[in-house]
Amino acid sequence: MTIPVRQLKSHSGETVTVRGWLANKRRSGKIGFLQIRDGSGVVQTVISRADVSEEAWEEVKRATQESTVRVTGIARVDERAPGGVEIQATDFVVRSLTEDYPITKKEHGTAFLMEHRHLWLRSSRQRAALAVRSEVCQAIRDFYYERNFTLIDSPILTPTSCEGTSTLFATDYFGEQAYLSQSGQLYLEPACAAFGKVYCMGPTFRAEKSKTRRHLMEFWMVEPEVAFLDFEGAVRLAEEFVGYLAGRVLDRCADQLAVLERDVSKIEKVTGSFPRITYREAIEILQKEGKEIAFGDDFGGEDETILANAFDQPVFVTHFPVDMKAFYMQPDPEDSELSLAMDLLAPEGYGEIIGGSQRIHDHDLLLERLQQHELPIEPFQWYLDVRKYGSFPHSGFGMGIERFAAWMCGLGHLRETIPYPRMLYKIYP
Amino acid sequence: MTIPVRQLKSHSGETVTVRGWLANKRRSGKIGFLQIRDGSGVVQTVISRADVSEEAWEEVKRATQESTVRVTGIARVDERAPGGVEIQATDFVVRSLTEDYPITKKEHGTAFLMEHRHLWLRSSRQRAALAVRSEVCQAIRDFYYERNFTLIDSPILTPTSCEGTSTLFATDYFGEQAYLSQSGQLYLEPACAAFGKVYCMGPTFRAEKSKTRRHLMEFWMVEPEVAFLDFEGAVRLAEEFVGYLAGRVLDRCADQLAVLERDVSKIEKVTGSFPRITYREAIEILQKEGKEIAFGDDFGGEDETILANAFDQPVFVTHFPVDMKAFYMQPDPEDSELSLAMDLLAPEGYGEIIGGSQRIHDHDLLLERLQQHELPIEPFQWYLDVRKYGSFPHSGFGMGIERFAAWMCGLGHLRETIPYPRMLYKIYP
Repeated sequence: MTIPVRQLKSHSGETVTVRGWLANKRRSGKIGFLQIRDGSGVVQTVISRADVSEEAWEEVKRATQESTVRVTGIARVDERAPGGVEIQATDFVVRSLTEDYPITKKEHGTAFLMEHRHLWLRSSRQRAALAVRSEVCQAIRDFYYERNFTLIDSPILTPTSCEGTSTLFATDYFGEQAYLSQSGQLYLEPACAAFGKVYCMGPTFRAEKSKTRRHLMEFWMVEPEVAFLDFEGAVRLAEEFVGYLAGRVLDRCADQLAVLERDVSKIEKVTGSFPRITYREAIEILQKEGKEIAFGDDFGGEDETILANAFDQPVFVTHFPVDMKAFYMQPDPEDSELSLAMDLLAPEGYGEIIGGSQRIHDHDLLLERLQQHELPIEPFQWYLDVRKYGSFPHSGFGMGIERFAAWMCGLGHLRETIPYPRMLYKIYP
Repeated sequence: MTIPVRQLKSHSGETVTVRGWLANKRRSGKIGFLQIRDGSGVVQTVISRADVSEEAWEEVKRATQESTVRVTGIARVDERAPGGVEIQATDFVVRSLTEDYPITKKEHGTAFLMEHRHLWLRSSRQRAALAVRSEVCQAIRDFYYERNFTLIDSPILTPTSCEGTSTLFATDYFGEQAYLSQSGQLYLEPACAAFGKVYCMGPTFRAEKSKTRRHLMEFWMVEPEVAFLDFEGAVRLAEEFVGYLAGRVLDRCADQLAVLERDVSKIEKVTGSFPRITYREAIEILQKEGKEIAFGDDFGGEDETILANAFDQPVFVTHFPVDMKAFYMQPDPEDSELSLAMDLLAPEGYGEIIGGSQRIHDHDLLLERLQQHELPIEPFQWYLDVRKYGSFPHSGFGMGIERFAAWMCGLGHLRETIPYPRMLYKIYP
């Protein structure tokens, strides 16, 4: 019977068949040691020449890395084996022979690996990173589902943009210009009045001509939005959310974190309440560290790292100057020059992983802000309507999935945390 | 204490506060009956002039439909009340008065409602349909997660297309032409060799100049793909999947189905094994019904309805002529003119809800098919690589979320099953 590697342990002593790909092979005289990967795991198979037919032994000899193979044998629980189980083979067959597999044990450059992303996916570190991403995505869904949020997928094709069109991908929509969405937030806010608590999660797009390890042209984002939630509530929701996700990763991705040689003690700290500083305090910290930065300046990547390193947990930076943030952010009632905005900075140099705010719910103030930002009113009429017909305080935030996954995995570059990364000039395969 | 309407039942006898929007108001002398919606539910509130302050009573008088309101009072379980609980108010306040709410009790045309989609979302039928969609999406995630599938989000921005560019949205990708994806399948197949069982679920795009109730320009699709799964296995997976989803909807969306006046007996039949007919048998059925259709012809919407009506469950149509289907479909070993392809037709005229197949795993046959379809080889080199390096039989299928949700809801048009539909010339809001 064909058994997934993941389930072999519960078939100890039984004759099983495993189908998969040959990840590695060693031969020592009349014994072969084969690592077979089937997608659910990797199992070591021991083939002794004496135990198998002549044909099967010939198959062992000709089998190459990444050939599709089928092995039959007896599963044996063995603590010393990787994965805790081993197969003592009685039959072995090559189903599809691989010749000249491009990715070998030698070091390959990243450009080469990215060109072969469709094959690179099979490597153990890539599998580990994408399994973490998959778990993170499900954990996000579960978090909001369990809290009675309604999933409101926002459109990708949108007629307008909040922040100019220079970083947008454009397309012709039956004679009209349309843009690929950078955020679903504006579409979530009206849905709050129908469902109270909503979220969206989908691909978002930035046509930025930049090549940094923290950016992708196409990445996934999750955005919750909640009616009657104030700024304090949004900060707490973000805290609970991030702690929940970290807990899920620790709980269910231990094998993957081990493959990635991740220091899990770093993730274990991502729990409970996170420290908070205001933007003003952040500037003071940076100035004390000798950085030339003044009130009103944006943080660079290095600044974020300095701030994050001052704490051993993620840190919220709050109360940014109004001019630094998007037009829709609610001003601080105690200082109208500041907005009720927050960034959550991850430790270890991963930078901003969450950005959010309370939203302006006063119609006339929002209109004023649109005008100050020189945005056209007509395309935003529907957005203004949310404040015209039964307005309500509300808050929300956004989190980039790949950046979060990279942090969990301890990876230096986002490109390894999405199956097929889209980067500058890089759209193959 | 502010309590979500959903949880009021467990606060019977307590003083509670509810915040939300006024869905409806009746006044009869010195008593007001207010329906208050907070996103988690709708609760009837009884306000007696004698029980509240003069100010509160004035507020009751001025409150209009869709005003934001706050009510405090005693929650009382009452079987006769809609939702099973009622509030006997002691205080009432209008937080944000709504004037001239565009959507009134009178009939509105669809064009008008679509222009006001951001407000139309608040209507009870729209809330019900989108809550069903939200549940269906989570059920899909859970189905694959529980079965150890890895989520492999496929890219939206793609360099090539399988089926010509006439129905694609195009965009400039830093000097290259890129297209919005119509399917993630090609990207899933390489991932099968890494993870065995994978799925993707995300927005897909069709720039078709057609205006039918069954089409959207932008819709969500789920696509599973499984290594070493043969055609029979794919049919069974589709069967199990659809049955699971229908069960979840019945189990968790009873209130929504009631609002939509859905005949749930239709959904209760979506369980167990579904009937199967071959394409050839389907043609014979249609010919017996008097349709002018010949072997090799595609089904029209009416044909699908005739076929579906012949059964009281969803019906699989299998073994289509090779020429009718995509280039990558595995030929039937018993008749190479037929492909191991399946469509699942939903009853009640909802048409094809699943399309899938076993995929060609022989490198040379796939190359031949690409050439027959006059497709360029170079952009498909990575896809051919899946057959070059450890090839393996595999199968999968795709299901459109909105079409499935429309069927569950019994809705005649897909546009009500996605928050912000994108249709021909229709991209606002």
